[in-house]
Amino acid sequence: MGDLKTALSDRAGAVEDILQTLLPSGNGPESRLFDAMRYSTMAGGKRLRPFLLVSAADLFAVPRRSSLRAAAAVEMLHTYSLVHDDLPCMDDDDLRRGQPTAHVKFDEATAVLAGDSLLTMAFEVLSDPETDPNPAVRIDLVSGLAKAAGAQGMCGGQMIDLLAENDEPDREAVERLQALKTGALITFSCEAGAILGHGSPEERRALRTYGDKLGLAFQIADDLLDAEGSAEDMGKAVGKDRDAGKATMVGLLGVENAREEAERLIADAVLQLDLFGENAMLLREVATFAIRRRT
Amino acid sequence: MGDLKTALSDRAGAVEDILQTLLPSGNGPESRLFDAMRYSTMAGGKRLRPFLLVSAADLFAVPRRSSLRAAAAVEMLHTYSLVHDDLPCMDDDDLRRGQPTAHVKFDEATAVLAGDSLLTMAFEVLSDPETDPNPAVRIDLVSGLAKAAGAQGMCGGQMIDLLAENDEPDREAVERLQALKTGALITFSCEAGAILGHGSPEERRALRTYGDKLGLAFQIADDLLDAEGSAEDMGKAVGKDRDAGKATMVGLLGVENAREEAERLIADAVLQLDLFGENAMLLREVATFAIRRRT
Repeated sequence: MGDLKTALSDRAGAVEDILQTLLPSGNGPESRLFDAMRYSTMAGGKRLRPFLLVSAADLFAVPRRSSLRAAAAVEMLHTYSLVHDDLPCMDDDDLRRGQPTAHVKFDEATAVLAGDSLLTMAFEVLSDPETDPNPAVRIDLVSGLAKAAGAQGMCGGQMIDLLAENDEPDREAVERLQALKTGALITFSCEAGAILGHGSPEERRALRTYGDKLGLAFQIADDLLDAEGSAEDMGKAVGKDRDAGKATMVGLLGVENAREEAERLIADAVLQLDLFGENAMLLREVATFAIRRRT
Repeated sequence: MGDLKTALSDRAGAVEDILQTLLPSGNGPESRLFDAMRYSTMAGGKRLRPFLLVSAADLFAVPRRSSLRAAAAVEMLHTYSLVHDDLPCMDDDDLRRGQPTAHVKFDEATAVLAGDSLLTMAFEVLSDPETDPNPAVRIDLVSGLAKAAGAQGMCGGQMIDLLAENDEPDREAVERLQALKTGALITFSCEAGAILGHGSPEERRALRTYGDKLGLAFQIADDLLDAEGSAEDMGKAVGKDRDAGKATMVGLLGVENAREEAERLIADAVLQLDLFGENAMLLREVATFAIRRRT
């Protein structure tokens, strides 16, 4: 796993360099907004979506300056979703990765605007010729990201999740919720590599399916950490999902069955990578690593 | 002005038809989100930005199915900005166009998500080949809208506006605030017509400048209505901007001087249209109409 850890850390560093360059800065009265965007985006994290995007793009020998910019756009979008989900009217979290959340560090209005701005900026970055010289590729990325993030993707998933707190959804409903809320953006991250690399429909489909399975498995792994982990490991309050009555696979299936389900999903995900042979080694390893990171 | 009123009403109807078709609907648990998106988007309004976009596109004989779709995207983005600006942590408005705002009708979390979803959907609509078959045109629209709406456009303007409540900005600062907060999207609406119509750099610049001047004039007209109008005309509480200590040109210059400034801006805007001759009659008329709608 040494190679994987090095690759994770190298790519996180590379995407953070790009994010530093792309995020706006200035001295005008709106610099408070720029500060909040930067604060939330540069607050660390595994940079998993960028890793998936860059690793998928590497299968097609996409230039890194392209894949890293697309990865930065996805990370901006992911950050916006965290900033808005943490708001008092949503999940009301004061802490994220051990640091005050944006509305605590700044204020609610600034947090809403920082999220809005990061979401908008993701599309600005994707539409820039620096990301890819071919407009057809760029518009394909924009379209895919918008679908993954919108009312019929991530936002829809968050809506369902908020309503589920007063409800007892069954397994099908929880899987759909998570496919939308966290899965859609992970799937897009994988597919974006194939878009940048002009992959065949078969390659694109394989990466999508890999992302679908991986996304569900990661969510189970997160829920297992929430159920079992310590606050120190998580950098946030633990047992909070359970206390909030959040619908999770762990809650539905129990810890042991949920863990088995995650292993099964990862095996399915890895199967999709046969198409890419040895080149897909990092994508295989990250799948296994992510669900075992506590053991 | 008979032709203008008919055109305003016809185009508002046409863009509302497209919005009805584009907005998602369904019976899943996320339908609350779809309902909130539709509630806010279909709540009426002059549909000024769509009118400008379609009228500018008409100068280049752009097919209406293209310009109306782009106009619908701009109106989604405009609606998102209203929904978020009305939130308790922002301007805290309960009423908009005489109806309860989204967070009152639904709840705060749903309003945040409906805004996020409308913003995202604007980019989805622009990226769809139905909007224009040429990917280079579509990506140009995405790029322009993202720049107009983001931290260095509309969101930045809203940040400055929130901070200005505790401040006493001078004329230059107020003009910059308004150029960002409301001007950028009006300017983009005008320019988008030239993008769809493959206008020359000169034509594009003329429509941008027309939009810049018009945006500032419209804002002054709105502020005059707020200062002088009745609650019935506005569909919202009047004098609220003044009471909230909002920075406006009317507050800075006084009613009479502000009105003269608006007239001057409109004259400058209309000058830009010489390039398009008789074809630009509606754009000329709407400029004059908008600042005189109370007289």
